[in-house]
Amino acid sequence: MAHALRLAARGLGATWPNPAVGCVLVRDGLVIGRGTTQPGGRPHAERVALAQAGEANGATAYVTLEPCAHHGKTSPCAEALVAAGVARVVTALTDPDPRTAGRGHAILRAAGIGVTEGILAAEARRIAAGFLKRVTRGLPQVTLKLAATLDGRIATAAGESRWITGAQARAHVHLLRLTHDAVLVGSGTARADDPELTVRGLGAPRQPLRIVIDSRLSHSPDSRLGRTAREVPVWLLHTAEAPAAARKAWDAAGARLIECPETAGHVDLPAAFRRLGEEGLTRILCEGGGTLAAGLVAADLADDLALYSAGCLIGTDGIPALGPLGLTALKNAPRLTLTETRTLGPDSFSLWRF
Amino acid sequence: MAHALRLAARGLGATWPNPAVGCVLVRDGLVIGRGTTQPGGRPHAERVALAQAGEANGATAYVTLEPCAHHGKTSPCAEALVAAGVARVVTALTDPDPRTAGRGHAILRAAGIGVTEGILAAEARRIAAGFLKRVTRGLPQVTLKLAATLDGRIATAAGESRWITGAQARAHVHLLRLTHDAVLVGSGTARADDPELTVRGLGAPRQPLRIVIDSRLSHSPDSRLGRTAREVPVWLLHTAEAPAAARKAWDAAGARLIECPETAGHVDLPAAFRRLGEEGLTRILCEGGGTLAAGLVAADLADDLALYSAGCLIGTDGIPALGPLGLTALKNAPRLTLTETRTLGPDSFSLWRF
Repeated sequence: MAHALRLAARGLGATWPNPAVGCVLVRDGLVIGRGTTQPGGRPHAERVALAQAGEANGATAYVTLEPCAHHGKTSPCAEALVAAGVARVVTALTDPDPRTAGRGHAILRAAGIGVTEGILAAEARRIAAGFLKRVTRGLPQVTLKLAATLDGRIATAAGESRWITGAQARAHVHLLRLTHDAVLVGSGTARADDPELTVRGLGAPRQPLRIVIDSRLSHSPDSRLGRTAREVPVWLLHTAEAPAAARKAWDAAGARLIECPETAGHVDLPAAFRRLGEEGLTRILCEGGGTLAAGLVAADLADDLALYSAGCLIGTDGIPALGPLGLTALKNAPRLTLTETRTLGPDSFSLWRF
Repeated sequence: MAHALRLAARGLGATWPNPAVGCVLVRDGLVIGRGTTQPGGRPHAERVALAQAGEANGATAYVTLEPCAHHGKTSPCAEALVAAGVARVVTALTDPDPRTAGRGHAILRAAGIGVTEGILAAEARRIAAGFLKRVTRGLPQVTLKLAATLDGRIATAAGESRWITGAQARAHVHLLRLTHDAVLVGSGTARADDPELTVRGLGAPRQPLRIVIDSRLSHSPDSRLGRTAREVPVWLLHTAEAPAAARKAWDAAGARLIECPETAGHVDLPAAFRRLGEEGLTRILCEGGGTLAAGLVAADLADDLALYSAGCLIGTDGIPALGPLGLTALKNAPRLTLTETRTLGPDSFSLWRF
């Protein structure tokens, strides 16, 4: 199962709206097939593993998620495992998708296959978190990325931010982008940094979607995002107040415009993220700025915080990593749990869970 | 030598104005004497080790600093080692004190003793950093302590700061206090937190000095510091502008008043720290607040940053850990090197060197 989970993790960022699943087929102590959900979400991991094995009669299948039970473009994976004659199936999680939700396990058991559930469930839940959140709550999983100085600043007073962190930390961010379905920034960051938001330097076979939350479409289509919107998709989340000329220009640049409800003059964040969930997105990396980050934290939309701490100090006159949260008491401050820590060249990386 | 360095570290915070030194005497593969510089700086580590050994004829002495060569209250340690008949002396560092500065090694060699220098010098230099800085530059070593949220805040907008970090981090701060000669805060922190600044909960046999930089003596003697000034010394660094009544009241409370030069209405920090160096202080722990911390960073007086990062977010409306640094370009931002990192319960601790 640990091996299957490694395979599952390879699909992160590539399989939405489907979950990234891993499958390993073992017979007589030998691995005879391995599969990862393919880019776009199909074929499923079980199909890939069965195809690799050729035949799998009497084998044990380790799958990180309950095999599907619904007829879509192909027959259900649970039936495919039965047809292949596997003797035993070991899974980590039950699929909460109402079309499966235990029926995959039931199909297997009805065919006389021994089924063991819940193996390495905690790790599987961590890998499948985006899919599980989308299916159960209608929202994508959100990772907040902050690259800040030790005193929590992301730029000098003049806005200079290149580079606070070193090359290793910046390469790690590209890895983070690769394992998310979409990279998202606020309009202030888009205007200030003119970012490309692509995965670079990793030989990446795919690129995440690029999303800007830009209520009034203030970011110019004559930007890096605008000029490359036909190569790597750009989505713009705006409100009804966005000027027609800007809509037309972005549309002409090849971007996708998504009108969202408004709250206090800005895109309503919970509504926007529900919409992104409806679009099938399971994992979103938010790269700032501070105002958007604070909005996500305040709206309880953030799941993880990926913090790159640079050994550097800027002082209060610099630009803060996080906007105002409006806390009235310390006991109401969001508390996070440290889940990972490592050194990246001169910088320190820590991953925290909300 | 590694053992001698451990012994030396035990003396940190207790031996000023003398260095914390460790000495191990070995003969025929057996440790026959171990010594640490005693509280107050005397007897020296070599004396303690020789006394423990009883006699040390033919032994090898491992000493973390060159044995002293000057006649003070007692004869020089170098002569004591000669008199004891040790066969060989291994040291980590040359003592930069002009009264020794190589003459300790010379006395040993003149007596026919084999001397090996520079063993584990880097670690010895780290432990002796406060003494070395005071002797060579006239300034104490300064550790800046920051206990902040992941976004660099030390309190809510309303000033609520208890507790951002957990019990383990707070206990670690007390350990940090114990290994420093003095704990220092600015007047704003003294007024806001009414701190005691003592070492508690560790069965500590001694307490560091407590120092407040308080230009106009605005902190009330009717405070925890004021009420306990006769039990654990309190020094107040102020300017000529401090009102006579406040001076009198603090004097009556038992505090020591030190008038310092003024710059822009505040205690001139470089002058104040030179004065603290003249007073013999070698290691000072600065516990805030943000304005004083920024002043020390800007004046290049800080040597280490002890950062306690709590898994918590407060937002821009909270109080920042570090005041303004007035940087004009990112390349001028102080850069620090990560030297240690560990998890303390729910918090993350990292030590950075300027």
